Amino acid sequence: MSLFRPQVQQMTGYTPGEQPQESGWVKLNTNENPYPPSPLVKAAVEQALAGRLNIYPDPLATEFRKVAAELFQVDPDWVLPGNGSDEVLTILMRTFADAGDLVSAPYPSYTLYETLAEIQGARFEKIQLNPDWSWPTTQAQEISAKSKILFVPNPNAPSGNRWSDEEIISLVPPQGVLVLDEAYGDFCDQPHKGELLKSQAGERIIVTRTLSKSYSLAGIRFGFAVAHPDLIQGMQKVKDSYNCNTLSLAAALAALKDQEWMQANTKKIQTTRKHLMAELGKLGFETVDSQTNFVWCTHPDQEHERRYQDLKRRKILVRYMKFGLTAGVLDGLRITVGTDHEVQTVLNALQEIG
Amino acid sequence: MSLFRPQVQQMTGYTPGEQPQESGWVKLNTNENPYPPSPLVKAAVEQALAGRLNIYPDPLATEFRKVAAELFQVDPDWVLPGNGSDEVLTILMRTFADAGDLVSAPYPSYTLYETLAEIQGARFEKIQLNPDWSWPTTQAQEISAKSKILFVPNPNAPSGNRWSDEEIISLVPPQGVLVLDEAYGDFCDQPHKGELLKSQAGERIIVTRTLSKSYSLAGIRFGFAVAHPDLIQGMQKVKDSYNCNTLSLAAALAALKDQEWMQANTKKIQTTRKHLMAELGKLGFETVDSQTNFVWCTHPDQEHERRYQDLKRRKILVRYMKFGLTAGVLDGLRITVGTDHEVQTVLNALQEIG
Repeated sequence: MSLFRPQVQQMTGYTPGEQPQESGWVKLNTNENPYPPSPLVKAAVEQALAGRLNIYPDPLATEFRKVAAELFQVDPDWVLPGNGSDEVLTILMRTFADAGDLVSAPYPSYTLYETLAEIQGARFEKIQLNPDWSWPTTQAQEISAKSKILFVPNPNAPSGNRWSDEEIISLVPPQGVLVLDEAYGDFCDQPHKGELLKSQAGERIIVTRTLSKSYSLAGIRFGFAVAHPDLIQGMQKVKDSYNCNTLSLAAALAALKDQEWMQANTKKIQTTRKHLMAELGKLGFETVDSQTNFVWCTHPDQEHERRYQDLKRRKILVRYMKFGLTAGVLDGLRITVGTDHEVQTVLNALQEIG
Repeated sequence: MSLFRPQVQQMTGYTPGEQPQESGWVKLNTNENPYPPSPLVKAAVEQALAGRLNIYPDPLATEFRKVAAELFQVDPDWVLPGNGSDEVLTILMRTFADAGDLVSAPYPSYTLYETLAEIQGARFEKIQLNPDWSWPTTQAQEISAKSKILFVPNPNAPSGNRWSDEEIISLVPPQGVLVLDEAYGDFCDQPHKGELLKSQAGERIIVTRTLSKSYSLAGIRFGFAVAHPDLIQGMQKVKDSYNCNTLSLAAALAALKDQEWMQANTKKIQTTRKHLMAELGKLGFETVDSQTNFVWCTHPDQEHERRYQDLKRRKILVRYMKFGLTAGVLDGLRITVGTDHEVQTVLNALQEIG
């Protein structure tokens, strides 16, 4: 007899991208920002370090919520902080989806949604996207109508495309919530500031954000949700009281205050992204118009896994991904937009290995 | 219709101890350590700060697990880190207790166990301790026999007493796990190093530890579980991949390496505790022999709430707690063992307010 819950016993668990701990890698596999965070972060953490670590942090993250709320032009009670948006997604699942409830998400997209549903004992339905990454609207709405949570990463991963606001609104579950996972939102040409929350369907939309990508703070583990206070209040009951620590709160606050720094980095990444897409095209790859800090590419010869392995042998990590669709297997490479130098390295290597 | 899961809709949520954010309080209500953490912590965080925060932390916490494992004389695959032992308890609940399963804990004890069971949709049964804080052994074993998880804080909170190893072993659920919550373990006159894990029932025991108390790192949010690798493996599937951040991992590692610092602080606290208990006795209070960094006290006149309020007016925070037992209401004050000066302040105030 297993001591575990049956779901836990059966599942394999989520596999994050490889994180080699030794240096010397060109690491373009987990969508980290190649640029350092704002210098204000270091200063803020040093100040927090000089304070009292023996005391619990503010369980309400008052200061952080104030600044995050300003960015979204809402009140602080619209904001809930977490250890990375992963923890925010976990809290969402535990707040809204009961065992047996239906949870859905587009497919291919972020595979963690399914893992979290599995842990929760919820049913999970994939909404297969069309080959051009558009929604099968009628079918999507049918599934949404039965869902307690529909997770929509916008821009999507691994494709990098962004769907329109109208499309998102049309997908809000009539008896549940739509989680708009904007992990990559700052990399869009026209970033959102929570406009959808103010739409009529907005009281059933929860926007999630992370500081891991645009704010260059993957190491800090900080994310947050923005939603109507009625929804935040329920999530508040589920989250651990002191989920964010003194140092990460200080870092996150400082990072959010330095919008200029973040925007300068995303601008650089947008430029490099354009270059990467163009050059991949010249090498015979097909790419999706990316609104993120990564590019999804496929090659007509289908030798994606071989290329991933060849690159890895050269200490270049990209993400090889494979999805089972009704029409067959879809695989490809997801390449993080690193520095110009890193991107040139992977492009040169791709040219060499053919 | 509520969008929340019914459990979440109905519950009130856990209320942590008050955390005034302004200074000027004598804060003896949340069992924080009055002494700063090891200076190695600051150095380690500064070093981590000089590194790359834009990169994800090691999802396996390799270095931390190695050092924690050495302390418990086990292999690193016996260790699972978390954001405070609160997160570890959450992970345990989600790994072992399905909706409808029975979860139990002694009562009065740490009330978070019940909150976590509630969120999970598990049934929760309180095992009412005897007035002298001993176990009602027969009844406890009957409840344990039906439990998927039995949480046992040892030493117990709010009483501060510690039960014997034999007693703990006799309570291990035959078809579940016993979570031995040793948040206050380091303050015992004879601290444990996971001896129970090596007993015959040890493969169904999970020890949890926190760095919030003895290591003076409540602000860092770090705890960990030690258990047989078969159990850790299941918990690993449930935890968020990158649950601990680069800075907290560095802080935790440094703190664990400086055992001497931690032990010097716990020794000071043991001495102050003795003094606090003796003086409370002189003021007419009854105390429990504490093996922790707090003292539970009651007064024959039963005016505990009035004293709590009177102290608060003087900017002294202690914890007033109230428990409904079959025999009636039990209430009292839980006073954290602060510095000698803080303890003298609360003692003087108690004398003045009568």
